[in-house]
Amino acid sequence: MSEFLKVVTVQEARQLIAGALPSRGWEPAVLSCALGRELSDAVYSPEPIPSFARSTVDGYAVCAEDTFGCGESLPAFLEYGGEIQIGHRPNFTVMPGQCCWIPTGGMLPPGTDAVVMVEYTERLGDDTVLIFRAVGPGENIMQVGEDAPEGSLLLPQGHCLRSQDLGLLASVGIKQVNVWQQYRVGIISTGNEIVSPEVCPQPGQVRDVNSISLAAAVQSAAAVAKTYPIVPDDYDRLRQAVLSACEENDWILMSGGSSVGVKDMTLEVLMSFPQAQLLFHGISVKPGKPTLAVKIDNKLVVGLPGHPVSALTMFGVVCKPFLDSKPPSQVNAVAGANIASQPGRDDYVPVTLKDVNGQRVAYPLLGKSGLMTILAQADGYIHINYQQQGILSGESVLVTRFD
Amino acid sequence: MSEFLKVVTVQEARQLIAGALPSRGWEPAVLSCALGRELSDAVYSPEPIPSFARSTVDGYAVCAEDTFGCGESLPAFLEYGGEIQIGHRPNFTVMPGQCCWIPTGGMLPPGTDAVVMVEYTERLGDDTVLIFRAVGPGENIMQVGEDAPEGSLLLPQGHCLRSQDLGLLASVGIKQVNVWQQYRVGIISTGNEIVSPEVCPQPGQVRDVNSISLAAAVQSAAAVAKTYPIVPDDYDRLRQAVLSACEENDWILMSGGSSVGVKDMTLEVLMSFPQAQLLFHGISVKPGKPTLAVKIDNKLVVGLPGHPVSALTMFGVVCKPFLDSKPPSQVNAVAGANIASQPGRDDYVPVTLKDVNGQRVAYPLLGKSGLMTILAQADGYIHINYQQQGILSGESVLVTRFD
Repeated sequence: MSEFLKVVTVQEARQLIAGALPSRGWEPAVLSCALGRELSDAVYSPEPIPSFARSTVDGYAVCAEDTFGCGESLPAFLEYGGEIQIGHRPNFTVMPGQCCWIPTGGMLPPGTDAVVMVEYTERLGDDTVLIFRAVGPGENIMQVGEDAPEGSLLLPQGHCLRSQDLGLLASVGIKQVNVWQQYRVGIISTGNEIVSPEVCPQPGQVRDVNSISLAAAVQSAAAVAKTYPIVPDDYDRLRQAVLSACEENDWILMSGGSSVGVKDMTLEVLMSFPQAQLLFHGISVKPGKPTLAVKIDNKLVVGLPGHPVSALTMFGVVCKPFLDSKPPSQVNAVAGANIASQPGRDDYVPVTLKDVNGQRVAYPLLGKSGLMTILAQADGYIHINYQQQGILSGESVLVTRFD
Repeated sequence: MSEFLKVVTVQEARQLIAGALPSRGWEPAVLSCALGRELSDAVYSPEPIPSFARSTVDGYAVCAEDTFGCGESLPAFLEYGGEIQIGHRPNFTVMPGQCCWIPTGGMLPPGTDAVVMVEYTERLGDDTVLIFRAVGPGENIMQVGEDAPEGSLLLPQGHCLRSQDLGLLASVGIKQVNVWQQYRVGIISTGNEIVSPEVCPQPGQVRDVNSISLAAAVQSAAAVAKTYPIVPDDYDRLRQAVLSACEENDWILMSGGSSVGVKDMTLEVLMSFPQAQLLFHGISVKPGKPTLAVKIDNKLVVGLPGHPVSALTMFGVVCKPFLDSKPPSQVNAVAGANIASQPGRDDYVPVTLKDVNGQRVAYPLLGKSGLMTILAQADGYIHINYQQQGILSGESVLVTRFD
């Protein structure tokens, strides 16, 4: 099958996947179920924010003109005309020469156009308020629509909804929004030696790791995972499994097949579909060189390495950015050791983070291929760009966390 | 109520909360439902990893002694003794002077103690294999228990389960683990002017924002949120609401009451419970000074500011670290403007992140108190330590993302 060989860089792989993303529809989502979803339509404000002119301070609502010229040594004397209750429309008008008490958030009464902060006032008996500082019209007030006019853009299309966005939508009375449907991601582990974790493996067999860890990673990326039964290295059964998964999902992640010839079988199976289009077969990357991607109709099939750390890393590098609109969780650290790298190849090195004298240090996790315990020790990975010749101990690095 | 006043620093507030955390029990969780949960018990491996000696390369399994002294110009001639099938226990023994084909992950057959990589071999006809490089005993093999002996610690108590941890647990046949119960967090918005987002507000009224945004933030922090009906500024109704919420939750978040005297009413209500213990009343922080915390029996009540950005920020600063064992999502950026700050006070400034000529720049979002659209624009916040006198434009800053 070497005629298919089409090795690309990580950047090229990402561009090829970006150009072959399965299309998806939209659906309505009520706010309480919309956290982490992406807007399929921009949202405009159905009403002005705020919807009434309100005070931004505790103090006295006045006609600004009545305060002109007053100061610390020459206060204005205004008649006390009543009190605004928070949450109520004022039931009186303030006449020239009058003022009224207004709390923060209170609705400005007719006849007033500014608020004097309580710190610059003094109440004299029941009827009089001294004003020690002049205010201009509009001072300490938020006008109708000042924050957002009616019809203004609140959130753009594609925006990933966070806690505060839901609050903003609730504040203007929006109860549901249109969001992109979540990607459905089918997961197939392959290999004659792989058995379900439910089964007691015979000597020579190992339990499936990638189905559960990739399903959890897909779930973390705000997509919907569906795992399929393990498929042995058999052309017909592999083809049937891909066919079923394509019917029920948008993306299919296949992993396994580290033994000679099996990767080729996966590709042969995928290319046997009439609409199959090879995006790439091999990435100049360590680990994860055998990663491949094939578009079949509107579905995207990504073949990941069998090794669990490599599979999760390559999922994070070439799949996650397209499933999850949240930015990856990354932290700065310094390298705890020299890390060799081959120029012309992107390296992703699993690291464990430790706090050393208040400094965050990333130690590379190196070991025989297949070490399972690296899974538990790896806090994330660092990327060594293909132009770099490795990283020196003490150099600063950016660690992308596993989640 | 000023006799209660007990203003603390952010660090002190965190320590006081850390010392008053509600206790919680544990529960079993099957792996498919355990993502993001914290182990209440350490997990030890019930079996050695790997459970059989396996090859880490494709090549020929040999008795190492048969290769001693061989090299590029003087190959060892070994008799071809068969092929190991991946996933099967070898059904033959390799005799001295023999070798057999073994794929990566294949089980080592009796009589062999090393594997020669295929690159250093040559097959001659049906019966003979040339070996061009000597191997030592154990070379290219992973021994039984080499990755983790039976009974060794896989994951410590308190570990937050990530995708790869679930894979590791599955690999040793563990189907469920004991995890801490999730904190139950009750959320109460208060204020005479606040109405439910379901209701059309009358002039002077505003829709509740904090219930939905705090509930989503609690959910993001892997805890379970329960929202309660809005409570007006009324002592008896507030007390009844706190009583109900305490019965059904571990934490209670109250927010609102920006008008004069209302914060005091919240504190008065909380301190009226027989077991109430004031942790702090006020934090030397901007925004969020009126934040308070009271322990009532085994429950923790935190009073947050009413302003939505302030409420979410203070939730992130003093509550989230204790609900969520995941590290916060933070990114490095440079300040896009000078930001003033008062020494002796911790400042948390909402910022929007923009990419300017390939550099990530954090612009402070300043504006009148109460601007709702800051909610949508804020990507996160930066912390200005109480020892700092502000931040200069161009200085590097760490942005904690909202999620």
